[in-house]
Amino acid sequence: MLLSFSITPLGVGESVGEYVADAVRVVRGSGLPNRTDAMFTTVEGDWDEVMAVLKAAVDAVQARAPRVSVVMKADVRPGVENALTKKVADVEAYLADPGRRLDS
Amino acid sequence: MLLSFSITPLGVGESVGEYVADAVRVVRGSGLPNRTDAMFTTVEGDWDEVMAVLKAAVDAVQARAPRVSVVMKADVRPGVENALTKKVADVEAYLADPGRRLDS
Amino acid sequence: MLLSFSITPLGVGESVGEYVADAVRVVRGSGLPNRTDAMFTTVEGDWDEVMAVLKAAVDAVQARAPRVSVVMKADVRPGVENALTKKVADVEAYLADPGRRLDS
Amino acid sequence: MLLSFSITPLGVGESVGEYVADAVRVVRGSGLPNRTDAMFTTVEGDWDEVMAVLKAAVDAVQARAPRVSVVMKADVRPGVENALTKKVADVEAYLADPGRRLDS
Repeated sequence: MLLSFSITPLGVGESVGEYVADAVRVVRGSGLPNRTDAMFTTVEGDWDEVMAVLKAAVDAVQARAPRVSVVMKADVRPGVENALTKKVADVEAYLADPGRRLDS
Repeated sequence: MLLSFSITPLGVGESVGEYVADAVRVVRGSGLPNRTDAMFTTVEGDWDEVMAVLKAAVDAVQARAPRVSVVMKADVRPGVENALTKKVADVEAYLADPGRRLDS
Repeated sequence: MLLSFSITPLGVGESVGEYVADAVRVVRGSGLPNRTDAMFTTVEGDWDEVMAVLKAAVDAVQARAPRVSVVMKADVRPGVENALTKKVADVEAYLADPGRRLDS
Repeated sequence: MLLSFSITPLGVGESVGEYVADAVRVVRGSGLPNRTDAMFTTVEGDWDEVMAVLKAAVDAVQARAPRVSVVMKADVRPGVENALTKKVADVEAYLADPGRRLDS
């Protein structure tokens, strides 16, 4: 399973980078494969592993904010490993050779 | 403005990589700063520029699918440029030095 | 097309109800079929109609907030009308009679 | 906490209403306050209660689909009860009397 999530604290002002860093610190301490970009952090693992990391990340932000908004998108596909890298590689392969047939 | 979006065709089977590639091809042809990871493509520009690219990307997928689901998250913050890179750099700066104060 | 969206102002405190009302006022003035619940406002129309209402709603919130986060989900299915009501009715029909076959 | 979620099975064709009904059946059996509209089902409870219902609903869809996409938005606000109804009532109050000050 891949889970992308974005945690936004409310009531702490316009700048939220330091709160996002609190959440990313939890994710990076989890040992699960992960990546952070400008809008989402994406984590890979089984449902329970990933949701435990999500909860800990939300708790880390909630410790310093009265209200937290969390946006999440999950891609649940049993039997697929290393999707964090493979999905992007497959898209790049299609872009390089539109005729190719893959299974992503 | 930053817009992250994910376009999922329905009715075309379990593997959607080639349809995602159709959308990413449009985005990369737009000339706007952009990045694609395993779950989202993120584009930066003003509202009209970005939404025109989004529509063209959805049209590209819709050309070959009976139904399309689109998930989007926008960060609208007038006056901020290069957020695609800066937001990640700020989070990394906080992670490296939690005491620092930034404006991301 | 159905578009569900949630507009969250940042930098204006923990309570955002009055800003959400500014956005809903725009939507209800648009004449497009719409519904608001605790988390999203959903609008039905063609892409350009709906995205014009979305932009006006975001502008209404942005007029009083330094930063705005917008979360959106679209169900784009050419040829389907009145999905705002029909999709819910179909789900209720399945719940009432699991054996039934529909096309929602 | 309020959680809105949308579960979309991939690889089962364009019509997904019966799969959504499988998920809604789980939610309605949970005893937690909930509402389903054309795009999302929203549930109210504490984090663990709500996430357990979400997992069971995803499992119900996954039992009949090779791949499942889940989109979620959470509003985590300790101390607030009955947000499923109160948030909408507050927005309606603002719409009826823009000058009013509330705490939603």
